[in-house]
Amino acid sequence: MSVISPYEHKVCYYETDCMRIVHHSNYLRWFEESRVYFLDAIGYSYARMESLGVLSPVLGAFCDYKSPARFGDTVLIFPKLNEFNGFKFSVSYEVIGKESGALLATGGTRHCFADGNMRPIRTKKEHPDIYEAFKKLLNADVALKK
Amino acid sequence: MSVISPYEHKVCYYETDCMRIVHHSNYLRWFEESRVYFLDAIGYSYARMESLGVLSPVLGAFCDYKSPARFGDTVLIFPKLNEFNGFKFSVSYEVIGKESGALLATGGTRHCFADGNMRPIRTKKEHPDIYEAFKKLLNADVALKK
Amino acid sequence: MSVISPYEHKVCYYETDCMRIVHHSNYLRWFEESRVYFLDAIGYSYARMESLGVLSPVLGAFCDYKSPARFGDTVLIFPKLNEFNGFKFSVSYEVIGKESGALLATGGTRHCFADGNMRPIRTKKEHPDIYEAFKKLLNADVALKK
Amino acid sequence: MSVISPYEHKVCYYETDCMRIVHHSNYLRWFEESRVYFLDAIGYSYARMESLGVLSPVLGAFCDYKSPARFGDTVLIFPKLNEFNGFKFSVSYEVIGKESGALLATGGTRHCFADGNMRPIRTKKEHPDIYEAFKKLLNADVALKK
Repeated sequence: MSVISPYEHKVCYYETDCMRIVHHSNYLRWFEESRVYFLDAIGYSYARMESLGVLSPVLGAFCDYKSPARFGDTVLIFPKLNEFNGFKFSVSYEVIGKESGALLATGGTRHCFADGNMRPIRTKKEHPDIYEAFKKLLNADVALKK
Repeated sequence: MSVISPYEHKVCYYETDCMRIVHHSNYLRWFEESRVYFLDAIGYSYARMESLGVLSPVLGAFCDYKSPARFGDTVLIFPKLNEFNGFKFSVSYEVIGKESGALLATGGTRHCFADGNMRPIRTKKEHPDIYEAFKKLLNADVALKK
Repeated sequence: MSVISPYEHKVCYYETDCMRIVHHSNYLRWFEESRVYFLDAIGYSYARMESLGVLSPVLGAFCDYKSPARFGDTVLIFPKLNEFNGFKFSVSYEVIGKESGALLATGGTRHCFADGNMRPIRTKKEHPDIYEAFKKLLNADVALKK
Repeated sequence: MSVISPYEHKVCYYETDCMRIVHHSNYLRWFEESRVYFLDAIGYSYARMESLGVLSPVLGAFCDYKSPARFGDTVLIFPKLNEFNGFKFSVSYEVIGKESGALLATGGTRHCFADGNMRPIRTKKEHPDIYEAFKKLLNADVALKK
């Protein structure tokens, strides 16, 4: 089992709001950044997947906010592929403060594979390389390297 | 029971992504817009609440995406206050295409009341006017007027 | 000469940053919102233009910030089409506080017409209806109605 | 003269729009990211500056777009401090495609130093450490290391 480093994101000034914390909507954007990174880390790329006409729209998303992130913080995001059947997949996420080690948020997203007209794609048959890449992600462990 | 019109939002060009649909993170922003509108509609304002030092940070949020919104669409958002105990509250949302009438998404957010240092505020005792405003929202019905 | 009302935008919570003012990047987004509105106001729509494969990418943009907008404010945006030759156009903008009447910002954007492959389009010949719509905008006056 | 590497940014999916290119407003956000990085690179931090109550609001910003960035691209941003008198400063930027080496955009921002109530701050007298940090930036060269 390969060990992948967590995705690292430095909080941007424009991600904060007048409550002086990161606006809650940005966590969904960080989840997305970490998915792109995650696929990259096992040698496949979202951009390549999309150039083949394979999209992975979000069917559902949630986030539970434990402790706010602020400008100046760096956060680590640990994505985990929980389910994948060639047609749909779900990912869960933990957001950890890099310096504090505190759990800032947990969340999840559900996706399908679809073409540009939002018609479903079954990757096992139509895109076996994508199917294999996601199979690898199922067994990937995202953890801080020791 | 008062009847409040749904919140209307015209999809912005910058809200779309290269999948040619609205980026999923924006639904959490629309939910927020509709909360501000909702409180306005019963005669209280978020800006006034914040000027008193009362924040309402998001503890959790979710959205289930049924059908994509696109540039050129106008969406109607129907917020509903489901729970409120003076200290925490939760809101659910339906997003409907204005022209199509189709259900585009459903979602929810959970909040508490807190001061600028993220210490909890009990509105019944400390801010009875805010308490009364939210009590009114519990009984408000958001619906298209006939 | 037709008189068009200014575009009205209520500042969103998520548009603010931890300086407690609207993040400066959002003014470019408001300019875009006002362009879409502006074209709508003379009976043409951006969405229709795009459905014909006519894009209007931004070649340049600037904004001078005079006084910050904050959550709770409503701003009025007065767009003005300054130049249009069928192939390129430029728009200038004034952002005014609705309540205060104060000038908050001025700015401008430059555009061309292009197809999905970013090849230039000459509207006079290829899309006379778009050409006529922009000609009308050249003579439109955006002002508060008395 | 110290040589600082350019700021590197991987285009995020959510930064694109339905024209399939990066939305033009995001370049102002990238400029901001690169300013934060730039100050970091000479050993000072925006977060520390803000914790001392010293803000640097944007007085003006512009961007000229030469060639669009797309999802999958990585861009390099070369910031340059052009003027600094202890009270105001201006920064210019070049955005280069990392793989293509092509110039994608150029731009600039103007800033002052201000406190939380937007009152001007003269750093030479009130915050000599910030004054010295910016003096160092005036002499910093942002370039690809050979």
